[in-house]
Order: sequence, then structure tokens, then C-alpha cells
Amino acid sequence: MSEEQKRTELSSLGEFGLIDRITKDFPLTHESSELGVGDDAAILNYGDKRVVVSTDMLTEGVHFDLRYVPLKHLGYKSVAVNVSDIAAMNAVPKQITVSIGLSSRFSLEACEELYAGIRAACEEYGVDLVGGDTTTSRSGLVISVTVIGEAEENALAKRDGAKEKDIICATGDLGGAYIGLQILEREKEVFLSNPEMQPDLSNYNYVVGRQLKPKARMDIIHELADLGVVPTSMIDISDGLASELLHIASQSNVGISIFEDKLPIDKQTYNTAVEFKIDPITCALNGGEDYELLFTIKQSEYEKLKMHPDIHFIGYTQSKEDGCNLITKQNNVYPLSAQGWNHFNKK
Amino acid sequence: MSEEQKRTELSSLGEFGLIDRITKDFPLTHESSELGVGDDAAILNYGDKRVVVSTDMLTEGVHFDLRYVPLKHLGYKSVAVNVSDIAAMNAVPKQITVSIGLSSRFSLEACEELYAGIRAACEEYGVDLVGGDTTTSRSGLVISVTVIGEAEENALAKRDGAKEKDIICATGDLGGAYIGLQILEREKEVFLSNPEMQPDLSNYNYVVGRQLKPKARMDIIHELADLGVVPTSMIDISDGLASELLHIASQSNVGISIFEDKLPIDKQTYNTAVEFKIDPITCALNGGEDYELLFTIKQSEYEKLKMHPDIHFIGYTQSKEDGCNLITKQNNVYPLSAQGWNHFNKK
Repeated sequence: MSEEQKRTELSSLGEFGLIDRITKDFPLTHESSELGVGDDAAILNYGDKRVVVSTDMLTEGVHFDLRYVPLKHLGYKSVAVNVSDIAAMNAVPKQITVSIGLSSRFSLEACEELYAGIRAACEEYGVDLVGGDTTTSRSGLVISVTVIGEAEENALAKRDGAKEKDIICATGDLGGAYIGLQILEREKEVFLSNPEMQPDLSNYNYVVGRQLKPKARMDIIHELADLGVVPTSMIDISDGLASELLHIASQSNVGISIFEDKLPIDKQTYNTAVEFKIDPITCALNGGEDYELLFTIKQSEYEKLKMHPDIHFIGYTQSKEDGCNLITKQNNVYPLSAQGWNHFNKK
Repeated sequence: MSEEQKRTELSSLGEFGLIDRITKDFPLTHESSELGVGDDAAILNYGDKRVVVSTDMLTEGVHFDLRYVPLKHLGYKSVAVNVSDIAAMNAVPKQITVSIGLSSRFSLEACEELYAGIRAACEEYGVDLVGGDTTTSRSGLVISVTVIGEAEENALAKRDGAKEKDIICATGDLGGAYIGLQILEREKEVFLSNPEMQPDLSNYNYVVGRQLKPKARMDIIHELADLGVVPTSMIDISDGLASELLHIASQSNVGISIFEDKLPIDKQTYNTAVEFKIDPITCALNGGEDYELLFTIKQSEYEKLKMHPDIHFIGYTQSKEDGCNLITKQNNVYPLSAQGWNHFNKK
């Protein structure tokens, strides 16, 4: 490309800006293409069945560091994060395809470790490996997973269905995966400066586990089905709570209020954040990779869920004009902003 | 991994050996998982519909060299090679997802070029882009495409359906993409040693086009449907004719005879091969990336296809005991061997 040609850096757009830009000229032409780019998964319509499809690519040095991520955990996680996208549609995953790009430094044994983790996740989430591609990569390891799930038409939960005065729910606890990453990065530095030193992670088991082996919350999806609750909107928390809240607000055309004192934060996450001099609330709002579910329900459904030990009611939707805000313990109101993962801004 | 642990090099297995090894412990558990790993695409059963799914990953420096592959062509090719897998099932592609890993050296404009090629292929093959992932890659460009197609149950053509005494058909011509690659590699060397020198490819337009912008043969699939012909088995020629013939023979449990003088080779391919001192027959047998279709038909279907200008009848199937052979013009019989693309053997 000649130097006179215009050059726009990808970092100036961010991942979502780039996706918007490059997919705007792609129309949907088939009857079976019910929903395209812009939600956790695409929706295909095969008459009686709705089939949901989602895909994620993980690249070495960006999404994982093989100096501290065991291959088996990586295999498990690469499936779990995709299953999480299917969960976020309120659908049930059925099949996956796995493509991997490997460099020659990988042995068969290393490859088998990776697939042992993939198999463990397939068993846990009940998905069949039906295809894939295995190829060489000149550089780092690349894993691309596509997952296919099924749902009844009236069970699907998209990002655009929230109405004003819905209740906003989040599962599990937030910020742990981000703090786990800080621990792993710190121990890596210690190890690199003194290879004799074995890392002691025993005080950080929970947060390290949140980073290395996140669970897709299919348990919640099955429980919602058992309770007869269909969320009005849903998304999985992969880029940070604030970013996901803003997606729901924007796509559902509503405003949002969430309460600082309702944000679910595990004690180990809280204490380790303090140790790192990071605000635990910032971790919960902007730390990525928790893979919990964020969803909205009608107020009339609250009774069915209120006793659930792992679903937290963190706020409500409101008119778009009232904006998207965090209400602090002191009753101060701050506008929410997404400072989640933007791969293109990272070096 | 400690040095005492066993280390088996991936190159000792090859791509197919690796796939066999790592997928053998993955059972199919769902009613909708009709066919898993081992054909051009997986088959999913949704009652009335059969849905086929295939995925391919292309990595920089292995599948393409950005020093001579225009991004637009690369985008087109990354879709076409996946559509070719759906064609090879005798199915019609409907949707794709595209995941790309980009390094920061890519500008928005470069990215738009890539997607312009993807869009051109989507329009040509009538597929909707319904999803994907856009992420950073620390090193080279990675493109992973998953394509979803549809077919009636009785129209599907798998690799395992050939019977003895079927006629073996190949579309188009073979070896051109391989020879095109030799031209591009040669011109690259010239250019690298003298950047002032502009390559003159005018005598090699056809073969260079076969490498840079291969077509998926959906035209053949539609014509077969119009003629009421369902192949007994089918595969696309991505790794070389000999390799694909051996896949059909092995999965259909038959032997094969093909005739040297029936192999379709374009004149430019032939002449350029001679110029490079490469045997044109070797190019046709073992050159990869032609993305033509190889299929078998019952003898009773021959009348319907015999006048087709772009379908060539290259041999027949026989009993497994008679082996897989090439019969030369001098009536010598040589066993076929796959010397196609094995990425793990390349440095």
C-alpha cells in the first residue's frame, strides 16, 4: 500500500467500531438467516427449531500466555467461553467445531493435553465435537471455536428485549477473573527474575481459577427453564459488566441504574484487589472474562428468582433519557462508561 | 513440560493422523449430530432439514504470503475454500461466520479490502455473513471461516458412498493452482532481489488466478441437481487429486483405477510445468488448492453427464483388493500415493 493512501489505525475504532464498520454492507438474504451480527450468537431458523451459532478466536499472547496457562485449562476455556455465548441466548449448546493453528514447537503430547481440556468441556456442557481444522501457524497458537446450539423460538433471549422498569440480574460474582490475571502476571515476573522461585498461589486459588478455568453458566439456563423464566434480554459478561450493560441499554433502547452496593464481589477478589491497590468496584465493573450472565426480567418474575442463591438483583432499567448510571453507597450518581477489554488498544 | 516426558513430533503424524488421534475419544451424543469429523463437513439433523457445517483456518506464511496475495483476493479465497467443502457434500451454502486475528500493522483500509473480498464471495455464492470475531494476533494474520449449508437428506454426497464399478469424475482442470504458486514464488524472489523490477505475469494469468482466486464449483452442484444426478460419493480437491482419491477409496472401501490420459490439465498449466521442469501429471495428481470436485456416479447416470463440457471421466472404482492405481498412457500400472499438502512437514 502506497504511503499516500489513507491509513486509519484499528485502535482508533476499537473492536466494536471495527465490527460495525466492516459488517454494515452485508445484508441477510436467506429465510433461515433470522439474526446476524450484533448479539452473542446468530439465530438460524429451521422451521420448528431455532439454531444459534457463535464463534470466538483465541490467540497466544493476547488471550493467553502459555508461560502460565496449562494447555488443558486452555482447551477447556476455549470451549467454555463459546458455550457462554450460547447460554447468553438462553439456548442449549449441542455441537462445536474446533480449528487450531499450531507451531512446530508443539508435540503430539502437548496437543493431546489441549484436546483433553476440550474433551472435559464437551463432557461438562454436553456438546459434540463434529468438525474442525488442524493446521500450522508460523507463530503462536491460535484456537478458533464455533458452537451451535438449539432453542425454542419463544425461549430465545436477545440483547434488545429489555423494557423500562425491568429488573437487572447478574449471576455469580464479578471481577475475580481480572484479579486472577493480575496474580498470574505478578508471579510470572517473580518467576522470570528468579526461576528457582516456585509460585505460591494457595491464597489465591479462587481468583486464579476464575481466570484459568471459567465456567459457562449453563446451570443458570437450565434453572431458568425449570422456573419458567425467560429473560427479556441477556448477554454474557466477557468484556466487563459496564460494557455489557451499555450493550443491553443501547440495543434495547433503555436507560439503566445499577447500585454499587448490589454488585456481587467475592471476598478473595475484594481483598486481593485491595492488596493490588485496585478499587474492587472497578474490577467488578470493568474486569473482563468472568463469563457470568447479565439479564433483565419483568418485575412479575422476581418472586420466582428472589431466593436463588447465585442470582443478584443489581439494578433496573429506566427510560433512555435517564441515562446509564452507577449509584454509589453515598447515593452519588455516576455515568457508566465501558473501559472493558479492547484488544486493539493493547500493545 | 519436563525433558523426560515423551515428545512425539507432529510431523511424524501428518494432519490426518493428528486429527484421527485427537478426535477418537469424542463421541457423538446428540440426535442432531448425524455425522462428525471425517468428511468435508459435519451433518446436523433438524428433522426436515439436513444442515452441513465446515470450518477452515488460514494462517499467514503457511496458507498465504501477503507479499504477493492481495487482501481482497485473500478474503474471497477464504470464503470460497469453505464453500467448496459445502459443495463437496452436494449441499448449498447459506451462512458463514468469519473470525480474524489481526496485528496492529493492519489499518482499517487494509481490513476493508479483506472484507471487500469476503463480501464479493458472499454475493457470488449467495451466503449471509451472520457472525464472527475480530481480535488481535501478535504475529500474522489468521482467518477462520465456518460455513453452514443446507440439503435434503437424500441429496447429500459423503465420502463413503462409492460402490465398485462407479465412474470417477473430476471437474475443471487440475494442477493450475500449484503451478500458479510456483510463478508467484519465483516472481517474489525476483522482486526481493531487485525491488525496481515489476513482475510480468501476463503469460501466466490463468494459473496465477487459479492460485489467488479459486472458485468453489457451486455451478456444478446446481447443474447436478438440475440433471437429477446425486453422486454416490464426493470430495473437493484441496490437497491434491491422489490424496482425495485415496480418501474416497478408503472411506468407501473400494479400489480405484484412473487413467493418465484422462486427467484434465490446462494448456498453460502444462506448458508452465514444463518450463519449471515439473511433470504436469505430478502437478495434476499432487498439486493442491484446485478446489475442483471429485465424485463418483453410477454407470446408469453417465448418459446424463457425458456431454457436460467441464466434467471429466477419469477412471472407475473397483474391488478393494485391486488397489488404487494410475494407468499410464503406456498401460503401465502405478499405485497411487498421496504426496499432497502436509503442513506439518513444511518448515
